[in-house]
Amino acid sequence: MFLITPVDVSHHEKIQTNIDQKTKPVGALGQLEMLASQLAKIIGPDTIKLSGARMLVFAGDHGIAQQGVSIAPPEVTQQMVANFVSGGAAINCFCRVNDMAISVVDTGMLAKMDHPDVIDQSLGQGTHNIAEAPAMSIITAEQGLAKGAALVREFADTGTNVFGFGEMGIGNTSSASALLSVFCGYTATETVGRGTGISDDVLAKKIQLVDKAIQRHQAITGFELDAQRSVLDTLAGLGGFEIVQMVGAMLGAAERQCIILVDGFIASVAALAAVRLNSDVRGYMVFCHHSEEQAHRYILDELQAIPLLNLGLRLGEGSGAALAYPLLKAAAAFYNDMASFADAGVTEV
Amino acid sequence: MFLITPVDVSHHEKIQTNIDQKTKPVGALGQLEMLASQLAKIIGPDTIKLSGARMLVFAGDHGIAQQGVSIAPPEVTQQMVANFVSGGAAINCFCRVNDMAISVVDTGMLAKMDHPDVIDQSLGQGTHNIAEAPAMSIITAEQGLAKGAALVREFADTGTNVFGFGEMGIGNTSSASALLSVFCGYTATETVGRGTGISDDVLAKKIQLVDKAIQRHQAITGFELDAQRSVLDTLAGLGGFEIVQMVGAMLGAAERQCIILVDGFIASVAALAAVRLNSDVRGYMVFCHHSEEQAHRYILDELQAIPLLNLGLRLGEGSGAALAYPLLKAAAAFYNDMASFADAGVTEV
Repeated sequence: MFLITPVDVSHHEKIQTNIDQKTKPVGALGQLEMLASQLAKIIGPDTIKLSGARMLVFAGDHGIAQQGVSIAPPEVTQQMVANFVSGGAAINCFCRVNDMAISVVDTGMLAKMDHPDVIDQSLGQGTHNIAEAPAMSIITAEQGLAKGAALVREFADTGTNVFGFGEMGIGNTSSASALLSVFCGYTATETVGRGTGISDDVLAKKIQLVDKAIQRHQAITGFELDAQRSVLDTLAGLGGFEIVQMVGAMLGAAERQCIILVDGFIASVAALAAVRLNSDVRGYMVFCHHSEEQAHRYILDELQAIPLLNLGLRLGEGSGAALAYPLLKAAAAFYNDMASFADAGVTEV
Repeated sequence: MFLITPVDVSHHEKIQTNIDQKTKPVGALGQLEMLASQLAKIIGPDTIKLSGARMLVFAGDHGIAQQGVSIAPPEVTQQMVANFVSGGAAINCFCRVNDMAISVVDTGMLAKMDHPDVIDQSLGQGTHNIAEAPAMSIITAEQGLAKGAALVREFADTGTNVFGFGEMGIGNTSSASALLSVFCGYTATETVGRGTGISDDVLAKKIQLVDKAIQRHQAITGFELDAQRSVLDTLAGLGGFEIVQMVGAMLGAAERQCIILVDGFIASVAALAAVRLNSDVRGYMVFCHHSEEQAHRYILDELQAIPLLNLGLRLGEGSGAALAYPLLKAAAAFYNDMASFADAGVTEV
């Protein structure tokens, strides 16, 4: 479905030598050295040139939100999208201060917004309630993958090689938890968390609804599906419009050999789905922060990811990805510009 | 000795309300909210204006380095200072990419460097070997505090309100470990680590020498000293020229109500000494990263500090402070510019 060139590991030794000859003890920059090595494998071993960094915020509504599984009512999705395009949200502040552009995508909100800065890629007026019915048809899920990928290609063609992936969608942690449960075999109790901060009562209800969604989905899923088809079927059954488009966009970014900045829980579930569809996408992914959402660690373990930040964030929007982006700039800066022992006349240690 | 106005907590409620009314669930930005609150208490509750951010790198030599307690020979201090002023070190790359200015200070290197960009605040040609004799006299330690503070005042007077504190000094983890042992009652085995990466044999020798230094110092220390005098005596007995000047510079920064970015192990020992001299300095300190050096956590616990980053760094130079600085910019950006629920017409959650 997607033709992804694996990241180029053929220059691994050259890259490692380059890092080790910098004027610092071997390994002294810790995780930043691993990051630089990954970026060099994506972008090229000579110079890590980051260009046109852009945050894509995918917004969509969820049928399950009508059941009151979130601290916020469904209309907040649209209100926050209005906030994004007027520049007032956290993600706007973080993108501005870290020199990232931002695009806001309507992947399927309850109501259309007539605003020139909202990219209309709507797949419908919110998904069905996953506790009762598949979120969307498989055809719609496929359209979502295609639309997400097409958007990324457009920006990649004009020079962007770093994409952040964020989302907005009241109710989307329910969808993400259900997806994670099915992808990795966890119960709803294990994957459902407090999202942006629900009470014990709402948490109990959310677990019950997500469990119902998982049971419903698994009851109608044929075991004869091949692995890829099964992932798509699960995305259609339990996903969200914004999640499906994120999956496609991540795969599209990897096709164009761009860096993928993965935000928190929802974006990581999308990343997991993308890896299940094509494991070569993994090498392009940088996991940006460790979310407060409890089940995030399952995905990080599964994908062997050590996030760059751990600041107790639970906001989404791509906020953690935008906050981590300066660490990529720093990794590129030391890789590109730091003197070697020989250059600087420093005794090699 | 230093007249520090405690950070202004009188506006705590106003600041917290400001943060809580932003268009995000309460607490959803985690540690970044605590950071914004601290910065607002330092800079003022209306707008967090960061200006003229500057990294101060204090370089000094250590008599104990002649005993081979580091992976690098003593001449590397000077070689790295040359690297700093020619812009080739990690700290230069990180400062450039994060818009921090950098100043390099000779606090007492083995040989003077005749370079216009090295600020000469030399207290001597390296300290004495602390295993054998006090590092410096108490008068010299007092001069060091004064010189460090004077440097900061100069920059504060021209508009800087954010200072990073970094260091370079082969052998300075030995000094820092000895200081920590005496300040907090740990053995050398507990406080001595691998620095930038020594072998088991060198580690054993380093522990032995640091233990000797601690015993030597405690044998000649009078118990009649008052608390402040005792800290100064310990700094003189076991410190380094760069450590002492960092202590003074941190206290000077707090006097001018500036933000103090504390780097890793060495800078944190300086921070601990500064707090022991005047506890009101603590409110101005932002702990930037968790060092790989094992004993760093003792200081963080003692000062109840949760660092912003944990990237496995063990370089010094101020590298972790420069890497964390964008998080301060992000905290200020959301505090200053993010819309409130009322502003944005978003349903309050």
